[in-house]
Amino acid sequence: MTPEEFRVAGHDLVDWIADLRTRVPDLPVRSSVTPGQVSAALAGPPPDWPAEFASVLADLDRVIVPGITQVQHPGYYAWFPANASLASVLGDFASSGLGALGITWQSAPALTEVEELVTDWLRQLCGLSVTWHGAIHDSASSACLVALLAARERATNLSETRGGLQAESAPLVVYASTQAHSSIPKAVLLAGFGRDNLRLIDVDPVTFSMDANALRQAMTADVADGRRPAAVVATIGTTGTTAIDPLSEIVDVAAEFDAWVHVDAAMAGSAMLLPECRWMFDGVEGADSLGWNPHKWMGTILDCSLLYVRDTAHLVRVMSTNPSYLQSAVDGEVTQYKDWGLPLGRRFRALKIWFHLRIDGAEAIRARLRRDIENAQWLRAQIESASGWQLIAPVNLQTVCVLHVPTRLVGVDGTEPDSAAVDAYTLRWVESVNATGRALITPSQVAGRWIVRVSIGAEPTERADVEQLWALMQKMVERT
Amino acid sequence: MTPEEFRVAGHDLVDWIADLRTRVPDLPVRSSVTPGQVSAALAGPPPDWPAEFASVLADLDRVIVPGITQVQHPGYYAWFPANASLASVLGDFASSGLGALGITWQSAPALTEVEELVTDWLRQLCGLSVTWHGAIHDSASSACLVALLAARERATNLSETRGGLQAESAPLVVYASTQAHSSIPKAVLLAGFGRDNLRLIDVDPVTFSMDANALRQAMTADVADGRRPAAVVATIGTTGTTAIDPLSEIVDVAAEFDAWVHVDAAMAGSAMLLPECRWMFDGVEGADSLGWNPHKWMGTILDCSLLYVRDTAHLVRVMSTNPSYLQSAVDGEVTQYKDWGLPLGRRFRALKIWFHLRIDGAEAIRARLRRDIENAQWLRAQIESASGWQLIAPVNLQTVCVLHVPTRLVGVDGTEPDSAAVDAYTLRWVESVNATGRALITPSQVAGRWIVRVSIGAEPTERADVEQLWALMQKMVERT
Repeated sequence: MTPEEFRVAGHDLVDWIADLRTRVPDLPVRSSVTPGQVSAALAGPPPDWPAEFASVLADLDRVIVPGITQVQHPGYYAWFPANASLASVLGDFASSGLGALGITWQSAPALTEVEELVTDWLRQLCGLSVTWHGAIHDSASSACLVALLAARERATNLSETRGGLQAESAPLVVYASTQAHSSIPKAVLLAGFGRDNLRLIDVDPVTFSMDANALRQAMTADVADGRRPAAVVATIGTTGTTAIDPLSEIVDVAAEFDAWVHVDAAMAGSAMLLPECRWMFDGVEGADSLGWNPHKWMGTILDCSLLYVRDTAHLVRVMSTNPSYLQSAVDGEVTQYKDWGLPLGRRFRALKIWFHLRIDGAEAIRARLRRDIENAQWLRAQIESASGWQLIAPVNLQTVCVLHVPTRLVGVDGTEPDSAAVDAYTLRWVESVNATGRALITPSQVAGRWIVRVSIGAEPTERADVEQLWALMQKMVERT
Repeated sequence: MTPEEFRVAGHDLVDWIADLRTRVPDLPVRSSVTPGQVSAALAGPPPDWPAEFASVLADLDRVIVPGITQVQHPGYYAWFPANASLASVLGDFASSGLGALGITWQSAPALTEVEELVTDWLRQLCGLSVTWHGAIHDSASSACLVALLAARERATNLSETRGGLQAESAPLVVYASTQAHSSIPKAVLLAGFGRDNLRLIDVDPVTFSMDANALRQAMTADVADGRRPAAVVATIGTTGTTAIDPLSEIVDVAAEFDAWVHVDAAMAGSAMLLPECRWMFDGVEGADSLGWNPHKWMGTILDCSLLYVRDTAHLVRVMSTNPSYLQSAVDGEVTQYKDWGLPLGRRFRALKIWFHLRIDGAEAIRARLRRDIENAQWLRAQIESASGWQLIAPVNLQTVCVLHVPTRLVGVDGTEPDSAAVDAYTLRWVESVNATGRALITPSQVAGRWIVRVSIGAEPTERADVEQLWALMQKMVERT
């Protein structure tokens, strides 16, 4: 494709995207395709010869758009916000258009220095001290893996440079709460610690926050058994209920055992943009690493996950490579992000943050986050005053966790309802909400039972949309 | 930014990109900014309020374009080709515009099924058997890490689900050649094996291919010492000289020790698109995993790295998570790519391969790859017939490794030239080529001395460009 062919097709695609974003509210939120349907619609041998661009665009309309769940929809309340602000979409497009190669500073100095600039902008916007230095990763899963590798290597004084984990005698242990995201156990397993050396610490039954005393007891018991506490993962804003682990206390406990503290704020990190929410992060200045995803609530398009660390020299020792073909005269003067994470070759992802902040401005982002928090509080208030509805967890941010127990499932003598019956009922009414195509909410298991997460925070979701959702939820429980 | 504001700005950006790609040949290949120059040009507090889009575009011209090395330039011969075909740029833009969230099949069925489709298209185009199944990763570094984690867990019968690496007694060992890419030692260290358990096997002094007998000897010695060979990484197309490890022999040796074989063909994998190059991959059907990067020579824009594996059930056992909030009725019927790699949340990267193959067609890609191979052979022939020039390695693909030793550095009695003097001379004349801004070539150390890699394969590089490069190289050695 030549630049002139690109120009023509590109204009068509800009219009197509603008039109799509305009009509998303009229699409069903959840894709209704069945397994294999997309494959079947596009099946055929690999194309040897060029297709008309119009036919590619037509296939987007015919197959791709109906084949994705519309997370940019005002009725999207599932999983977590995955906003793709249009300013950041343009930044991502500019990155692709530039076609830069991020392997070293020399290969694209601007790629490195804009990444330093925007990660520092976000540090300032989040109220973090100057001791933190950030880099962009693809996901919180990868960022957490990097953090745990850094922790592993600090605990073993760089065992990777010698005999590796097998040469270490005392088993290393990692701690997180029972509510930690599934990516934490995954990272623990991949980093080689082993499931036997992962302790999932109990949480408070009301707040779902990690019990710091239980953490101390577990660490003490491990030390007594000849094990070495290597890392604690504290979650600010758990996936299940947006619970807030007591970071200050955790940092103090971890310090007693010289364990690395990684803060997983993948979803809730955006809340640091709001001064009134920073109390949730009290203690963060005592942590060693902090991960959060602008590609969630803040809305810089996927993939855009930040990992801040304080001891960058240690991180570089753990992750660095310096083959001759990448050496240059400026080595030592510049940041080499290849030594801050897993990949060597990196996209110019900083540009999408830069576009997002410059075109929208931080104030607009803060206003939107506050709107979402207010909408969640509004929904909380409705639920608290409605018969049969229960709040399952504190509404700390934008996620509302609810349960509805109809009178018929409560025993006539007021005994506890049959939990299996309530579970089945919950899954039925959620499905009836989702089947309308007007909203998507997620069932999730909390403390052994199915509850419903309403995760508010899609960019176009206004109060009127939340009001419609609440009406829809009430209607569907009546019909179920 | 609203869809209508996006429409206006998007049209401007399309024109800006088309214009940029048109004028890239007039830009210096190598960025001439000094460390800190980009940061200084963009410095300021984080923006609270929106900027005009025109001012953002102006900064791209003023700061960003001069701040990147132009790897889409016809004079780009450094590191490795990093083509960003404009068809794939549009695919990437479409992906961003859709704003899809790839966490499970349910969150974006088309994201999963198009990834299955295009990885199978590329499997077919590469002449690989139906036993291979591919997924898109960000980089060959990550893909290799995933492969070595799979190898580690096969060798230990899933130690991660028990006590991890520390509970395993016999040390696990990984093998690669001395010419393996730096990402291989990095992955070995990160996966916890430890540097003491990495064996860099000698290569043939002429072809730089791994010595399979030396591999067998090393594995035999390790077993005799109570160690367990876990994995062998064979490279097809090393970064230094595009050397080809003897895969058939390696697969046979590895089989004797039940070791996983990972094939790293990050750069050279594109050559599988050409039937006449498939001999380089003889034996691949006996390997366990194969990584290659369409984002290099083939030209699907970064980041687009493929990892093919055969035992996907094992891979999923190693990488899977299944938290309640992601469970759905179709689990078990569909592919969940979250369980094939490191990240949970993934972009719709398959779309850029799909656009690339549909808009350009495979035949045009094959023609371009053949053009590059012919250009490399042309340059090889010039070098072979030119006085003072030496070829350092076989020209297997598109990389030509050369050395120039001027008469004055050869002793009058014909003795070997002083290697330090030649090294200094080499680095000087390469720098004088690169300083012109008309070409960029990379010095690299091979067998202890600095040589020069000319990596042909930028999308716009035609024969006339290579002729100009050769003239420039000759002129600069004369002047040095």
